[in-house]
Amino acid sequence: MTDNTTIFNDHFLLHNEAGKNLFFNYAKDLPIIDYHNHLPPAEIAENKKFVNLTQIWLKGDHYKWRAMRALGVKESLITGDATDEEKFLAWAACMPKLLRNPLFQWSQMELKNPFGVDEYLNPASAQKIYAHCNELLQEDSFSTKSLLKGYNVEMVGTTDDPLDDLAAHKKIAEDGFSVKVFPSFRPDRFLNISNRNAFLENIVKLETIANTNIRSFDGLLAALEKRVDFFHQMGCRVSDHGLNLMPSKYKMSKSLEDEFNQFIVNDFSDPYSSPDTFAGAVLFELCKMYHARGWVQQFHLGAIRNNNTRLLKQLGADAGVDSIGDFSQAVALSNFLNGLDSSDQLAKTILYNLNPADNELMATMCGNFSDGTTKGKMQFGSGWWFLDQRDGIIDQLNALSNMGVVSNFVGMITDSRSFLSYSRHDYFRRVLCNLFGEEMENGLLPNDEAWIGGIIKDICYYNAKDYFNF
Amino acid sequence: MTDNTTIFNDHFLLHNEAGKNLFFNYAKDLPIIDYHNHLPPAEIAENKKFVNLTQIWLKGDHYKWRAMRALGVKESLITGDATDEEKFLAWAACMPKLLRNPLFQWSQMELKNPFGVDEYLNPASAQKIYAHCNELLQEDSFSTKSLLKGYNVEMVGTTDDPLDDLAAHKKIAEDGFSVKVFPSFRPDRFLNISNRNAFLENIVKLETIANTNIRSFDGLLAALEKRVDFFHQMGCRVSDHGLNLMPSKYKMSKSLEDEFNQFIVNDFSDPYSSPDTFAGAVLFELCKMYHARGWVQQFHLGAIRNNNTRLLKQLGADAGVDSIGDFSQAVALSNFLNGLDSSDQLAKTILYNLNPADNELMATMCGNFSDGTTKGKMQFGSGWWFLDQRDGIIDQLNALSNMGVVSNFVGMITDSRSFLSYSRHDYFRRVLCNLFGEEMENGLLPNDEAWIGGIIKDICYYNAKDYFNF
Amino acid sequence: MTDNTTIFNDHFLLHNEAGKNLFFNYAKDLPIIDYHNHLPPAEIAENKKFVNLTQIWLKGDHYKWRAMRALGVKESLITGDATDEEKFLAWAACMPKLLRNPLFQWSQMELKNPFGVDEYLNPASAQKIYAHCNELLQEDSFSTKSLLKGYNVEMVGTTDDPLDDLAAHKKIAEDGFSVKVFPSFRPDRFLNISNRNAFLENIVKLETIANTNIRSFDGLLAALEKRVDFFHQMGCRVSDHGLNLMPSKYKMSKSLEDEFNQFIVNDFSDPYSSPDTFAGAVLFELCKMYHARGWVQQFHLGAIRNNNTRLLKQLGADAGVDSIGDFSQAVALSNFLNGLDSSDQLAKTILYNLNPADNELMATMCGNFSDGTTKGKMQFGSGWWFLDQRDGIIDQLNALSNMGVVSNFVGMITDSRSFLSYSRHDYFRRVLCNLFGEEMENGLLPNDEAWIGGIIKDICYYNAKDYFNF
Repeated sequence: MTDNTTIFNDHFLLHNEAGKNLFFNYAKDLPIIDYHNHLPPAEIAENKKFVNLTQIWLKGDHYKWRAMRALGVKESLITGDATDEEKFLAWAACMPKLLRNPLFQWSQMELKNPFGVDEYLNPASAQKIYAHCNELLQEDSFSTKSLLKGYNVEMVGTTDDPLDDLAAHKKIAEDGFSVKVFPSFRPDRFLNISNRNAFLENIVKLETIANTNIRSFDGLLAALEKRVDFFHQMGCRVSDHGLNLMPSKYKMSKSLEDEFNQFIVNDFSDPYSSPDTFAGAVLFELCKMYHARGWVQQFHLGAIRNNNTRLLKQLGADAGVDSIGDFSQAVALSNFLNGLDSSDQLAKTILYNLNPADNELMATMCGNFSDGTTKGKMQFGSGWWFLDQRDGIIDQLNALSNMGVVSNFVGMITDSRSFLSYSRHDYFRRVLCNLFGEEMENGLLPNDEAWIGGIIKDICYYNAKDYFNF
Repeated sequence: MTDNTTIFNDHFLLHNEAGKNLFFNYAKDLPIIDYHNHLPPAEIAENKKFVNLTQIWLKGDHYKWRAMRALGVKESLITGDATDEEKFLAWAACMPKLLRNPLFQWSQMELKNPFGVDEYLNPASAQKIYAHCNELLQEDSFSTKSLLKGYNVEMVGTTDDPLDDLAAHKKIAEDGFSVKVFPSFRPDRFLNISNRNAFLENIVKLETIANTNIRSFDGLLAALEKRVDFFHQMGCRVSDHGLNLMPSKYKMSKSLEDEFNQFIVNDFSDPYSSPDTFAGAVLFELCKMYHARGWVQQFHLGAIRNNNTRLLKQLGADAGVDSIGDFSQAVALSNFLNGLDSSDQLAKTILYNLNPADNELMATMCGNFSDGTTKGKMQFGSGWWFLDQRDGIIDQLNALSNMGVVSNFVGMITDSRSFLSYSRHDYFRRVLCNLFGEEMENGLLPNDEAWIGGIIKDICYYNAKDYFNF
Repeated sequence: MTDNTTIFNDHFLLHNEAGKNLFFNYAKDLPIIDYHNHLPPAEIAENKKFVNLTQIWLKGDHYKWRAMRALGVKESLITGDATDEEKFLAWAACMPKLLRNPLFQWSQMELKNPFGVDEYLNPASAQKIYAHCNELLQEDSFSTKSLLKGYNVEMVGTTDDPLDDLAAHKKIAEDGFSVKVFPSFRPDRFLNISNRNAFLENIVKLETIANTNIRSFDGLLAALEKRVDFFHQMGCRVSDHGLNLMPSKYKMSKSLEDEFNQFIVNDFSDPYSSPDTFAGAVLFELCKMYHARGWVQQFHLGAIRNNNTRLLKQLGADAGVDSIGDFSQAVALSNFLNGLDSSDQLAKTILYNLNPADNELMATMCGNFSDGTTKGKMQFGSGWWFLDQRDGIIDQLNALSNMGVVSNFVGMITDSRSFLSYSRHDYFRRVLCNLFGEEMENGLLPNDEAWIGGIIKDICYYNAKDYFNF
């Protein structure tokens, strides 16, 4: 297959000489610390191979589903009962219409690396590409572990439920895989008390896995702390939380505690009266636990999820019907972080923001809670989800640069469910180097490759290595 | 008159070769489908000619009024009792001070096409330009119908009140005008119950024109449906709504219905208790009617209107004292659209946004409600009002591209009250081609003119043609 | 010391020929009207010299403190008991890590002018630069008055408390300093009734300095008006107010007045019931006073201050723990300005905005309240605080240009506590000229240097001269 366009050439996204030098001399060959993603650890543990390109590339990718729906593709070809090949062909037919969406660039990058495809995916090329990739997928070099090694991944941070027994992580560690694979602690379900039955089911499961009874708010915290300790033993050093916005209150009154203690045992209980305070209080206590163990805590803020009830019912969560919200973030976020800081219990923190209108708010919020112990303690996280494209990455880098200290930045993550998404690190590094290089050439930055190159290396790799200390 | 600056040359707004090729080979000569504007249909029906440039260009243009006020021009020279010539000279004196505002570029483009003026408008040139244009305005080629044909307009979508008898549209159709002129249904006044007297006056008028009695909420809906049907017979396939933000509720309780039924007959009624729910419920039911008829529904969200009470009293609405609001849009918008989608009654929808901070929110909201039947069913509309300038257009295109499918976009509208505003399509097409062309040249887009040119043609013309199917 | 990089050369920030011509031929040599800053007038009155670079450059600069904390520097080296030299060395070690933050560029510009340092500040150069600058600081040409004259400052507008006796301003005037130094009236403390003890202490001080008793709301207003008159006599023509957002109400009911009258005398009073209405009402009446005297009123909106309680307690306000808020601005702002406009008591007004997501809102809000008497009466103020960097400046200029009349703009201010911050005017003028120059070169602006140069001169100097009429 031949190189027929600049989109595939080595200089993709690199439009100036200084940027090219930064990329090739400093960024390109650094290992990847992918400290936050949604890879299924079991598929690593079993060193899975995928039967075809649809299985590894389309199944489970709600970004692609969403684009297909916008182009009028019927659901059966997206998540329904069509064959894998039919689904692939439906996707291929969408590709030429997806120009300027990051899916187009990511998809072509993913076809190029690891599959070596140098052709645009479209109806004319689809069959050939499908056959080519499916053949490669049978090789050992395309197993999950091989893919991670092939992408030069040094560390994978999965996202895991407190109820998870982390058996897959245990097996990976025991099998001696050269890539570090650690869990992250994501306790979202224990913050949400609004659906009583679902909450109580989770409590029962927690009692089982933590081998304890939960009869009170303190009992709940104690059980969660047992899970935190277990995760810690398993190498976890990071927590994560998905929230529309930070809870506005985080202190349980005596009466709210009493209500909770009654709520979890009384079969005829009314709905819990203050779900926001409950969420805040559980989270606040968890954050103290993270701090005590030297963990990093992550907050993903600003999404409005499951907007489409029909598809939610049909497909469950993560169906590609989430979007960007416009919640008032600053006051609650300030109060929560300040509450932890006041007693010096604020852990290293990464704030991810989904609404770009809040980028500057988030970048400046971080600056309020630095301390004199940790370089870059408070991080404004990389462009997330919808913002994980060239414009979004540049906006995040500029807000962070103008209002914070970009040289402290712990850099990119895939945040993906796919083993093929590591091209996003390549993508990010190119955008980063191009941006800095342009400013070296026009005098906004010193034209000093070693100086700027050192910062590039820190952002791409060394800052994360220092920050997480896995 | 001579070409003395690049602002007038053929390459205005086109700064790269690929963009020039896209514009001249693909975009420039396409007809215009101006599916949303505020042109007065009566002035088309009568094939009006204007006595002078002030009448066609300044009278009724609150964009220009607003700029003149900011420059300290007194109201008598703007909307007051000065002569038309005095008003024109006052405007001409403002022009050199309006650089970087789109008014400057639009105005010069409008003087060039159709008047052939290649000179900057300023106090020195004003008298000559005024005389030149006034002379041309007496020619038949400057009547309203001639202007529309001259601009290569294929379709005009006016904005009309349910109380309108559409006589002008009827006359235009009967007279056999080659440009399609269809009404749009804009029922804003029937959503607003907060001023009882004004509301009841509208109810009386609706009873008359719909030839029905309205004694209940259902009766109101039935009367409105008769108007929807009448509009449909007259070729209308589009509705439009101007709202600060989407109503947060849309279901009338029994008691709210009872209150309404009493409210419209009791002379001493208290103010209606839930105007927001009322607005939501009327709108929700109207949206079902639109869906049943295959219409497109438009929502213009985010303005805060009539901020200046003194000028509102003096001049009425649309006096140039409106601005951009910062309402929380996402939750109510999601609920409303989801409510319609849940029963599969969500019509094709265009969301127009006035606050650019909400661009990404709107672009992603659209993506939640695609379905497998219609390509581009949910549209993030073109840069609106204050955002209808180069930066605003680019921001909308980028948000839509990054978070949606720009190749589905139904493109530009004038949204104007003036027969001279069609240069805005020229303006838009140039910005669009320049943007895509730049990315072809730097490798962000494939350097494939036929591929990209096809998308350009779709955005400029064919998508709208398919979507509205007038 | 030698010029070793483009960051120091004459063309810094100027990337096109037209922009260079604009800067050198029109902008560079204009005097500076710095109508809003936080310079301490006493240090001007005494023509202070500084013992070392830390005293003039680091002490009191919470921007730098904040950056140092983010880089993990301990508080003793920032605001604590380390020696001045140790603090300077700590700052020097941060500089190479601050690329892309405006602190880096400002700091190097300040070292170059007035100190003539052409070298990057870093650990290797720190000792030499410290010694060099400290030596110069002993010279008479580095006294506060000399510095202001050296920067070609024509006017300094300080920010002053109603309780201030303005003795320093009096001395400066009597001593015949060639630079005008006028106070601005900043009554924030009298809008804040939420802390009763602090409020009453201020009332007592106000009674003393205004030589009056305050026993009622009217009495409070009368005392404040005496201070307004005193400030006016001292040359003040400008007020300033720092608010999260505009108060939503501004009319005191009879019962709220009664409550206030009791509140200020009753030792056991409950907290005042409507602090927001109180703030609004005091502010509204003050605004009428400003209007009656032909003053300019400034509003700084959108900050969320003192987020970090630990550092607030340790260091007081302005400790570098403030950030950008996301308050709903439009409705309250519209109502407040409209309330004043309705009786024709709206003074010339400058709105400063801290959250860039609100730039367009603010730019369009201004346009609602223009009148036919004053060119540029309503001003969208220059990029403020976190937004006072290249991107922020460009964003403000573009929003103002697209949605208002940039040629009316009264331009840049330092808003600084430091006598070295005048390079920010140099910085602003370069960004401005580069932006306009780029558009002259690509045809977005007429390629007419006299025309554009005239607008540049107005923005940099003449508009402010006309607007304030000091």
